[in-house]
Amino acid sequence: MYFASDNWAGVHPRVADSLSRHSGGFASAYGTSDLDRAVEDRFNAIFEREVAVFFVGTGTAANALALAAINRPGGVTLCHREAHMIEDECGAPEYFTGGARLHPVDGRPGVSAVGKMDPARLARELNRFPPDFVHAGQPMAVSITQATEAGTVHTLTEIAEISAIAKARGLPLHMDGARFANALVALGCTPADMTWKAGVDIVSFGATKNGCWCAEALVFLDPAQARQLPYIRKRAAQLFSKTRFMAAQFDAYLQDDVWLENARHANALAARLAALFRQADGIRLLWEPQANEVFPVMTSERMAQFEAAGAKFYPWNAPHGLEDMIGENERLARFVTSFATTDDHIDAIAALI
Amino acid sequence: MYFASDNWAGVHPRVADSLSRHSGGFASAYGTSDLDRAVEDRFNAIFEREVAVFFVGTGTAANALALAAINRPGGVTLCHREAHMIEDECGAPEYFTGGARLHPVDGRPGVSAVGKMDPARLARELNRFPPDFVHAGQPMAVSITQATEAGTVHTLTEIAEISAIAKARGLPLHMDGARFANALVALGCTPADMTWKAGVDIVSFGATKNGCWCAEALVFLDPAQARQLPYIRKRAAQLFSKTRFMAAQFDAYLQDDVWLENARHANALAARLAALFRQADGIRLLWEPQANEVFPVMTSERMAQFEAAGAKFYPWNAPHGLEDMIGENERLARFVTSFATTDDHIDAIAALI
Amino acid sequence: MYFASDNWAGVHPRVADSLSRHSGGFASAYGTSDLDRAVEDRFNAIFEREVAVFFVGTGTAANALALAAINRPGGVTLCHREAHMIEDECGAPEYFTGGARLHPVDGRPGVSAVGKMDPARLARELNRFPPDFVHAGQPMAVSITQATEAGTVHTLTEIAEISAIAKARGLPLHMDGARFANALVALGCTPADMTWKAGVDIVSFGATKNGCWCAEALVFLDPAQARQLPYIRKRAAQLFSKTRFMAAQFDAYLQDDVWLENARHANALAARLAALFRQADGIRLLWEPQANEVFPVMTSERMAQFEAAGAKFYPWNAPHGLEDMIGENERLARFVTSFATTDDHIDAIAALI
Amino acid sequence: MYFASDNWAGVHPRVADSLSRHSGGFASAYGTSDLDRAVEDRFNAIFEREVAVFFVGTGTAANALALAAINRPGGVTLCHREAHMIEDECGAPEYFTGGARLHPVDGRPGVSAVGKMDPARLARELNRFPPDFVHAGQPMAVSITQATEAGTVHTLTEIAEISAIAKARGLPLHMDGARFANALVALGCTPADMTWKAGVDIVSFGATKNGCWCAEALVFLDPAQARQLPYIRKRAAQLFSKTRFMAAQFDAYLQDDVWLENARHANALAARLAALFRQADGIRLLWEPQANEVFPVMTSERMAQFEAAGAKFYPWNAPHGLEDMIGENERLARFVTSFATTDDHIDAIAALI
Repeated sequence: MYFASDNWAGVHPRVADSLSRHSGGFASAYGTSDLDRAVEDRFNAIFEREVAVFFVGTGTAANALALAAINRPGGVTLCHREAHMIEDECGAPEYFTGGARLHPVDGRPGVSAVGKMDPARLARELNRFPPDFVHAGQPMAVSITQATEAGTVHTLTEIAEISAIAKARGLPLHMDGARFANALVALGCTPADMTWKAGVDIVSFGATKNGCWCAEALVFLDPAQARQLPYIRKRAAQLFSKTRFMAAQFDAYLQDDVWLENARHANALAARLAALFRQADGIRLLWEPQANEVFPVMTSERMAQFEAAGAKFYPWNAPHGLEDMIGENERLARFVTSFATTDDHIDAIAALI
Repeated sequence: MYFASDNWAGVHPRVADSLSRHSGGFASAYGTSDLDRAVEDRFNAIFEREVAVFFVGTGTAANALALAAINRPGGVTLCHREAHMIEDECGAPEYFTGGARLHPVDGRPGVSAVGKMDPARLARELNRFPPDFVHAGQPMAVSITQATEAGTVHTLTEIAEISAIAKARGLPLHMDGARFANALVALGCTPADMTWKAGVDIVSFGATKNGCWCAEALVFLDPAQARQLPYIRKRAAQLFSKTRFMAAQFDAYLQDDVWLENARHANALAARLAALFRQADGIRLLWEPQANEVFPVMTSERMAQFEAAGAKFYPWNAPHGLEDMIGENERLARFVTSFATTDDHIDAIAALI
Repeated sequence: MYFASDNWAGVHPRVADSLSRHSGGFASAYGTSDLDRAVEDRFNAIFEREVAVFFVGTGTAANALALAAINRPGGVTLCHREAHMIEDECGAPEYFTGGARLHPVDGRPGVSAVGKMDPARLARELNRFPPDFVHAGQPMAVSITQATEAGTVHTLTEIAEISAIAKARGLPLHMDGARFANALVALGCTPADMTWKAGVDIVSFGATKNGCWCAEALVFLDPAQARQLPYIRKRAAQLFSKTRFMAAQFDAYLQDDVWLENARHANALAARLAALFRQADGIRLLWEPQANEVFPVMTSERMAQFEAAGAKFYPWNAPHGLEDMIGENERLARFVTSFATTDDHIDAIAALI
Repeated sequence: MYFASDNWAGVHPRVADSLSRHSGGFASAYGTSDLDRAVEDRFNAIFEREVAVFFVGTGTAANALALAAINRPGGVTLCHREAHMIEDECGAPEYFTGGARLHPVDGRPGVSAVGKMDPARLARELNRFPPDFVHAGQPMAVSITQATEAGTVHTLTEIAEISAIAKARGLPLHMDGARFANALVALGCTPADMTWKAGVDIVSFGATKNGCWCAEALVFLDPAQARQLPYIRKRAAQLFSKTRFMAAQFDAYLQDDVWLENARHANALAARLAALFRQADGIRLLWEPQANEVFPVMTSERMAQFEAAGAKFYPWNAPHGLEDMIGENERLARFVTSFATTDDHIDAIAALI
């Protein structure tokens, strides 16, 4: 019953095989091997255009270097109040940008859009930064998370609305795609649909949580905007020498729809889990999962029972604005599924309920 | 004939096996799994004391975070003029420290100590920073590379002398051990001898070049000095989620002397290669290799012949002070051996000569 | 009718005289002249203990260097949502700390405490940072503004409550005293009362707004905590060479209660202005001024009339939580008085009303 | 006998008067007053073209912000080995650029060009940075000091040669003009000649040492390159509120050739002093002063006699490469003259000799 995080899983067997297969022989280092090139081409194919791809070691690195690449003096990036960048990266975005600020934007009130940036509020917050008013600093980017930290997914229309507001101020739109694949299969669209066709400029493309060991990619939809990235990545200690170890992971991950199947599997099990919670006595869902994370509300006693039975999951802070929907003796919990979650894990939860 | 760098090799079969073996199942993330703990214990055993170990993704990260941990305002780290930190890390040490400076110290003149820091010159350079003279900044650390970028190795006495000078100014001594194992077997001493017994405080412990994919460790010999490291590493985007992928590499690497055998093998082949060059017509060695790098001087034509025959190696800048020992039509080259180099590669070079 | 800001004034005649008096002759530079020392002693006297004083050029520099001095990796400083640090310093605190974050804490709801940090909310926000939870970063300081950006003043009890919460987490308390003197005379207490006796550790001591050209001081109540400040200040380009020009300003400013008289004058005129607004038809005060800033609400037409008549002041954003108290056709304005404001200016406003 | 530094002087009487004159009344803040604008126009006139001017508080700030404005990831600025930026700014350039590096370039060997960058060596050092070789970082600027730290002055031809080499690599040329006026009158040319006509792009224009309290300007010869400067300056805590206090200094300084007369006076007295040293028994000049600094070599005893007699000056490190020209019992000293130095001071030295 491992639901603590999708990063408690190991790697998909085909990723493991690929690593073994590429472990021998010699290859040029620092991203210049044939395999590196082949994987870069695969990214072009997936995004249906020529993109610039940079492998990095962690999702935090991808996010932080994305911002470092588009930084401005006194720069401010607008993102959701509960974005991973703000809550869970120990200040890495600020550190790598030399002090750029993350400015929180809330979602719409209520549970209908938990975790998602509200275009109207984005527009309002941008008004706090009049052009040439040097004291407030200057907006440099908008960033959204897809799927969100709350397991919800921005629709293509929502992304396009946010992008339009950003573009009206000349700002690039970044997408933190630590769970890119989970969102993609939830929407049933193409990577092109979910990114450049909707106005996204830069993607942190995560593969680690969905079947790899350590494989993240920073993708610039317009390669011309990535000219300084080779230096930005090396300076950030994110240029690995034996890069084929990452390329080998991506190679297997992106072949034969492994990545999409993994995500579909995880999302489906999350839906099964949600159905269980919805029907259980004394357990509620404040909002419906759209990807691979489920957030049940239950009493502390119930939570302790789960834990005592060996279920691994985390208690979670209530999203801003929903604090009052959780009773005095209740807690919010987060259950995450992954490619490695099996029906057995869900059955075990069912048995507990 | 792959001699371009030891990072052109893949991974040792036992490292590959270990990764496969650990690829399934669930384990807690961010350095908290049982395997992570077991490998940390192994480091304690290797260093014969309790140390604080932090896995990071690249050698540049290890060096940069070491300095970030001991940084001071206006801080200056004294290192060899041709240290990797200065020449090959794209300013990462300065970036991660928010602008600390690397101050070059030369070695003794001549070929007898190429690549090695001269204690006398270290002392002289430190005098440029009188206590409380705010304009010059303040020394914060001394850093040496072991084995050096020139393939030489500081003796235990030399390390102790350098440490004594550093300690007299209250400065910690850092060792860039990207080729730690190669130096260790060259000296025939223990890790304890080469580090804390000789006055070293912090080690960048490299394993990538000597048989792993991506496995570097930042080792603080005194854990009390590493209290902020968990935050420093996370902020630097170097806290991997599925850390067992690194632990699995180290686990195999450090068992049954795999790491030492790999290094002995690489050093022995370098010695064989050096012997070939020494006896070859029209090829000279300015200094003798002590680890796994050999630097022959040859004519440009000769170099072109090697390249045409498929030998992979890099032309190299002459070490400072030795420029005049290389003739107008001559070039310096660097040949690196690794655990994966075979006698066949050396034989092929012999055939060319 | 100059009410745009207290920094539109020039300098007090005694400050001007002091500068003239010290403009000749030779004196050692970089804070080492006899006059520098004499002014440092005066700070000791004012604070009734030995303090460490560092002159800097701007209030932003004082705030940013205060944080740079107490910075930690992944560091987070908790301050009011509308603190000057967040709203008006173009990211300088983040920049000088290499990316430390400012975490907003609201005041109590309603107008009773506008601009002031609520101890209860401070405690709640600190709970978001569990010890050793590396992902969230770590609190490094609490900062309050005194007088606040809303022209209100924390009572000594409030400061002590905030300090107690900070101290319980081992955090220093910083006070942004850009309008230190205005708050001091409002409370009728001593500098010692308002700082170390209430648990304040570091003060940005502003004099520019209250009668100087360019005279700010960073004051550490415990000199032992300021050991790195000489390097921090020099590295930040805030060590002036001819420091006596700042010392000369402070010398006059702190003599014969010039600074306190200036602040009393400004506060008294603000009170007169507030009384006028309170009685005016169609003008309201949402809260009462406690120092030298008055925030009337009026219609846009009324505001335009004031401007057409030559009154200088700024429209102002509604404090968070009070947006709904301002009607559709209304605006909030900020009027600031200073030592240089005269009764004539107030009479002119009275005539307009 | 005050020869320690030109920053031991106070301010020129006309600068003092100007400050007094502007000390009353109200003016808009942050560089927007009429006086600010008038002084900016004067800079346009002096440079014979439209320039972008930014007042900052210290020469270190001007240098550091110049580099911050033209920074690149992994950026390297080439400057003289003994440039003020390297030796005397406590790492401010690295700090404000988030870790850009200063790469030392020597002058020509011997005393003929002490303190001056050698174009040939500049070209050679630039070759260490092949295009797109990410490991070494990338050159971002060349910086020269005029007059140099050794009191010498680059000729217009030398500046043009250096600029040509920089431009061939697409690099801007910065001039640290802490003693701009002293160099200008030494060359007998116009500000336009010494800057943009010779290929200089950015100037740190110093006035503090030559008659002001605290008045430095960062001048971009091409305003289009300065678009981010307002944010860069504010973020760096260098946007003063009552900027007219700086404008008032510049206003007097730049009128009626005050600045040029001050510099001529200082240079003339330095020449008189040099003549005295040249003829004195047991005192030597290794090179001739070209601006307002004189560097005699004398025995330690002689130096002690000067000090005992009340002469203020500093012992100085021998320039790199000239160490052997100073005997075992000898020391190098630095004597600096300024606008405030009088013939009496020189006569007193003559009497001592």
